[in-house]
Amino acid sequence: MASTVEGADTALLPEFPRGPSMPTEQERPSGTWRVHLLLQISLPHLLRFQKTIFSALEKDPLFARSPGADLSLEKYRELNFLRCKRIFEYDFLSVEDMFKSPLKVPALIQCLGMYDSSLAAKYLLHSLVFGSAVYSSDGSEVLLECAQRTFSCFPSFCALTFRFLDVFALTELSHAVNTKAIRTTAHYDPATEEFIIHSPDFEAAKFWVGNMGKTATHAVVFAKLCVPGDQCHGLHPFIVQIRDPKTLLPMPGVMVGDIGKKLGQNGLDNGFAMFHKVRVPRQSLLNRMGDVTPEGTYVSPFKDVRQRFGVSLGSLSSGRVSIVSLAILNLKLAVAIALRFSATRRQFGPTEEEEIPVLEYPMQQWRLLPYLAAVYALDHFSKSLFLDLVELQRGLASGDRSARQAELGREIHALASASKPLASWTTQQGIQECREACGGHGYLAMNRLGVLRDDNDPNCTYEGDNNILLQQTSNYLLGLLAHQVQDGACFRSPLKSVDFLDAYPGILDQKFEVSSVADCLDSAVALAAYKWLVCYLLRETYQKLNQEKRSGSSDFEARNNCQVSHGRPLALAFVELTVVQRFHEHVHQPCVPPSLRAVLGRLSALYALWSLSRHTALLYRGGYFSGEQAGEVLESAVLALCSQLKDDAVALVDVIAPPDFVLDSPIGRADGELYKNLWGAVLQESKVLERASWWPEFSVNKPVIGSLKSKL
Amino acid sequence: MASTVEGADTALLPEFPRGPSMPTEQERPSGTWRVHLLLQISLPHLLRFQKTIFSALEKDPLFARSPGADLSLEKYRELNFLRCKRIFEYDFLSVEDMFKSPLKVPALIQCLGMYDSSLAAKYLLHSLVFGSAVYSSDGSEVLLECAQRTFSCFPSFCALTFRFLDVFALTELSHAVNTKAIRTTAHYDPATEEFIIHSPDFEAAKFWVGNMGKTATHAVVFAKLCVPGDQCHGLHPFIVQIRDPKTLLPMPGVMVGDIGKKLGQNGLDNGFAMFHKVRVPRQSLLNRMGDVTPEGTYVSPFKDVRQRFGVSLGSLSSGRVSIVSLAILNLKLAVAIALRFSATRRQFGPTEEEEIPVLEYPMQQWRLLPYLAAVYALDHFSKSLFLDLVELQRGLASGDRSARQAELGREIHALASASKPLASWTTQQGIQECREACGGHGYLAMNRLGVLRDDNDPNCTYEGDNNILLQQTSNYLLGLLAHQVQDGACFRSPLKSVDFLDAYPGILDQKFEVSSVADCLDSAVALAAYKWLVCYLLRETYQKLNQEKRSGSSDFEARNNCQVSHGRPLALAFVELTVVQRFHEHVHQPCVPPSLRAVLGRLSALYALWSLSRHTALLYRGGYFSGEQAGEVLESAVLALCSQLKDDAVALVDVIAPPDFVLDSPIGRADGELYKNLWGAVLQESKVLERASWWPEFSVNKPVIGSLKSKL
Repeated sequence: MASTVEGADTALLPEFPRGPSMPTEQERPSGTWRVHLLLQISLPHLLRFQKTIFSALEKDPLFARSPGADLSLEKYRELNFLRCKRIFEYDFLSVEDMFKSPLKVPALIQCLGMYDSSLAAKYLLHSLVFGSAVYSSDGSEVLLECAQRTFSCFPSFCALTFRFLDVFALTELSHAVNTKAIRTTAHYDPATEEFIIHSPDFEAAKFWVGNMGKTATHAVVFAKLCVPGDQCHGLHPFIVQIRDPKTLLPMPGVMVGDIGKKLGQNGLDNGFAMFHKVRVPRQSLLNRMGDVTPEGTYVSPFKDVRQRFGVSLGSLSSGRVSIVSLAILNLKLAVAIALRFSATRRQFGPTEEEEIPVLEYPMQQWRLLPYLAAVYALDHFSKSLFLDLVELQRGLASGDRSARQAELGREIHALASASKPLASWTTQQGIQECREACGGHGYLAMNRLGVLRDDNDPNCTYEGDNNILLQQTSNYLLGLLAHQVQDGACFRSPLKSVDFLDAYPGILDQKFEVSSVADCLDSAVALAAYKWLVCYLLRETYQKLNQEKRSGSSDFEARNNCQVSHGRPLALAFVELTVVQRFHEHVHQPCVPPSLRAVLGRLSALYALWSLSRHTALLYRGGYFSGEQAGEVLESAVLALCSQLKDDAVALVDVIAPPDFVLDSPIGRADGELYKNLWGAVLQESKVLERASWWPEFSVNKPVIGSLKSKL
Repeated sequence: MASTVEGADTALLPEFPRGPSMPTEQERPSGTWRVHLLLQISLPHLLRFQKTIFSALEKDPLFARSPGADLSLEKYRELNFLRCKRIFEYDFLSVEDMFKSPLKVPALIQCLGMYDSSLAAKYLLHSLVFGSAVYSSDGSEVLLECAQRTFSCFPSFCALTFRFLDVFALTELSHAVNTKAIRTTAHYDPATEEFIIHSPDFEAAKFWVGNMGKTATHAVVFAKLCVPGDQCHGLHPFIVQIRDPKTLLPMPGVMVGDIGKKLGQNGLDNGFAMFHKVRVPRQSLLNRMGDVTPEGTYVSPFKDVRQRFGVSLGSLSSGRVSIVSLAILNLKLAVAIALRFSATRRQFGPTEEEEIPVLEYPMQQWRLLPYLAAVYALDHFSKSLFLDLVELQRGLASGDRSARQAELGREIHALASASKPLASWTTQQGIQECREACGGHGYLAMNRLGVLRDDNDPNCTYEGDNNILLQQTSNYLLGLLAHQVQDGACFRSPLKSVDFLDAYPGILDQKFEVSSVADCLDSAVALAAYKWLVCYLLRETYQKLNQEKRSGSSDFEARNNCQVSHGRPLALAFVELTVVQRFHEHVHQPCVPPSLRAVLGRLSALYALWSLSRHTALLYRGGYFSGEQAGEVLESAVLALCSQLKDDAVALVDVIAPPDFVLDSPIGRADGELYKNLWGAVLQESKVLERASWWPEFSVNKPVIGSLKSKL
């Protein structure tokens, strides 16, 4: 049922803001701001783009959902492969389009990921990660020129697709995060002008490589480059053929296989590869970081190995930005399912006769609504960070070597390294809360919360373990402070995320002075507290680090001893502040209509205060909070905002949820017919009313109790 | 490799404390206290019992692990059914044995659950839940006399097994936790002396019933009992035949089926059933709570419906105690896997050449060791609570109707209702942390952390949603305080868990006065803080509740408005205090040898302070903490204890881990050969090196990029 729309492009809306899940009309919020909101958060061209994708999938039988299917691993991989291929046939996003409307990239990824994470992962790994690695490593300015060094002819980037399927092979069985310890070697042989790619033993097998398990024909293999009579020159990328594209059988000297079932994303085939003295031509080296002359002399535009290494991995930070988007789409789905369920599930009530929706309970609101607010705040942040990244990449592509460009790279690296943990953890915890908040029905596989949890989980790990990544961000901030202390430099960054630190002595003198809940219901309150918190943690971390060093710890030890209680919360508080700041500014733009600003303001305040409340202990410890009231006000404000938002919850969910076909959760359908949908789906499962094939094991072969006792 | 054993029964030990996972000898702790510990926490007869079970499973091909098998749902259910049957053939625990050594019940459940949660669940549901429901509902004094009312002859409890397979059907599609709203009816027909069991519609279908999906022949159906010309008398249990035991086909009028795949525990068949005017004899009513005369008059030993209802569900609290044990076994496995992995996985180091085990990093210690401590503390608590429950049930069985018996019932109910949430949440969070702490390898299905997470998850939900259960405990404490305030009653309970509250005015005046980390390394510090915290939260909750009522809230509203910020933390703090108290006392018994006491004391202090640290904000808010130092000391003490325990971690894990065959995780094997085990297991997976059956889809059927674009 389409909602009433005023002053909006109604052609866009028949499917998006669908019927209310709330059962009665009086419980529904008004439709006006809902449409405003929709247009605000998803620009019309993105909305149209997403609608095109969802419609195409829904019409195509290859994407039909199969209720109750108990897919084998092999079957699922085949299906995902065929679907990925089909996505290329649809060619939703051309390279030109991508450059013109960069936000279509995360929009496409979100659409595919909402349908199935494995599909998004397979597509993303192939078309973006490989592309960007080849691109950045080669240093050429046109997207695929680089690959022309090894392959003869590529009319376009997409033509590469499925002619050869390429993967990005960095991690090994015994090393992942410590890439410097990667042990695969590439020795140059001037006699034949070839590199010899070799895995010294199985611990150096490339491992966890996406798409490698069953389908990849070529791999970008990271190996230590060695030339004769010289030391090794660190990690470099080489294009190595691993399978024959005609037969998909392994190339001689290559042992390639599938690492097996994972907790989730099983549509994607992750694999391993070992190389036994595999020879590849000199031109297989992607030579942005360094090259080898035909005679075997190593040449590099970079002076030292560390700098070269930094450049070779710097390009990976775009992966972290993508993961923020991948995580949030999972949270969108989970929150949509749990809030629609909560608006229709009734349990207990003020009298024995009357039952109320579970969303009416403060407990259920408190469990779920902060995650709804998190979706809005993080989704906005994710888009804005993606646009920052586009700016960075365009600068790189245009040869910008300015100091600002370098600073921008560092700032984005710091933000991406902390927002990836923040988004993936918030989502993982949010999905778990949604699962539990839906009770037993949340534990039924068909309702999809389990798949979401399993599929989101690796977001906490790949492209860098969350806890380790946070160290990148705290190091960035500590570096700025050291620069300020030693050289009197100002805190300035291109995106201005650190500029407030200039005022840190004054900020540290501030106190929390809000005494009523009513005064606390704005994200500005949380912003002030967050600024104090980041200053406090930065000072404490800096002092602790220096104290550790003074007491004789090496730099390695000192950093390790500071990370748990100082660096980690510092990095998280900093990125939370940035997320809150950006969403706060977004909400308070003059162009946002007042009715929309009211509801977005509540979301902004709820996310900000709820996140902040996890740091209450530190706020007290450092003296920003004192007395009983401060903590009480904060806690009460969170509950008050939940209560204010609960009647808008379903409408807010309808804006972010994909169509029912994509959401694919009987308890989360937009029509709110919870039990009809669930019961219908149960009856569609395979063999639901049939007796088991093994029934005689019950009926005939009765056990003799204790008959095996003598064997014990 | 067996460890050196001094003064212990070595015959017990060849398999239990197995080889060290630490790679070098110097990193290993001494073996002496390890053996002491082993004997201390697992009494010898229990150790022997567990060893018998594990050996029997390992020798029996039916229990062989099948690496890489991608079991279908149906196949897994069959296998689990056959294994459950086999467990009855082994008859590990006779009824006599169970009465003589009650701790063998949780020991058996832990052994089966460590092998596979589905097996433990299927076995437990059949043999214990049904037994205890029939038992408690009937009121007869011998375990199975009751069932003789409906079935002709049961030589022993176990003989029932697999002749009929019975389930316990309470929850319905639209109602679970609010059992009072259950809508299935049982109308009595005096003309035929039968009850007519009827489901008014599909929303009243019994749903989520364990074992009902494929195998149950009879169900204990809870329905509203109605007699002619009278109002209904609330929920009563009826034994209803749902399938023909000879054919396993449904009985006429019964629609019974499988609810489908769940997130975990898929070896267990959960089902649904709808009844269309199914007639059962009058004797099918299990008549402990109330009976109907042949003429149709309702008679009950209880005066009002509420009291009757309380008794009918009171017996379910034993389920919660079992869940504590089920949760902890999952945490034991997860912690064993993650700590062994962390002791052998090396990544980075003080120099580029030297890599150190990741367990050497304070971050990894902080992530994992508190969960190791939680295993020890909660496992001890779980056993002690089980023994309390046995005392309660023996009292019930012997007809004890004393006030103490009633008080004991209430206290156990309060403890079980909060320890089930505590144990299931601690485990769920712990498994997630272990999964992440093992990086990508933790995300490989073969390493089992995903299965553990999925299998533990329902522990948060069944037998009562965790958040709702906590209300039982806070209500219990509020009731005691009201009694004290109104009648001047003392705080006294049979297990003494509330006795300290008598001194609450004095306790509330206390402050945290520990100023050095060294003085904080004992669980006594946390105990004092916890006592203050419970007193503070109890007073605050009581005041908030009264304030809500004074401002016009109904009792229903007032409780709902107090639960999030008051009742919930109150219940959690109370049960954490009890867990800490019991483990503290256990560790400080005079019979514990000093070397053992040192390590157990560290575990006790770590668990206590780590748990307490989640309440730091409240400690500050209420004034128990003040100044920067208090929070710092608490945080530093947790890190110091982690550091002190890290060298003992592997030995502590070896004590609680089952044999490798049961643990079933290549990265968690006791020999510490991380990569050999993992690589070997990967190569054993099915079709690991084979190309996919659908390879021509890649090699031949190339997509034409954009060929479907016109369809958009």
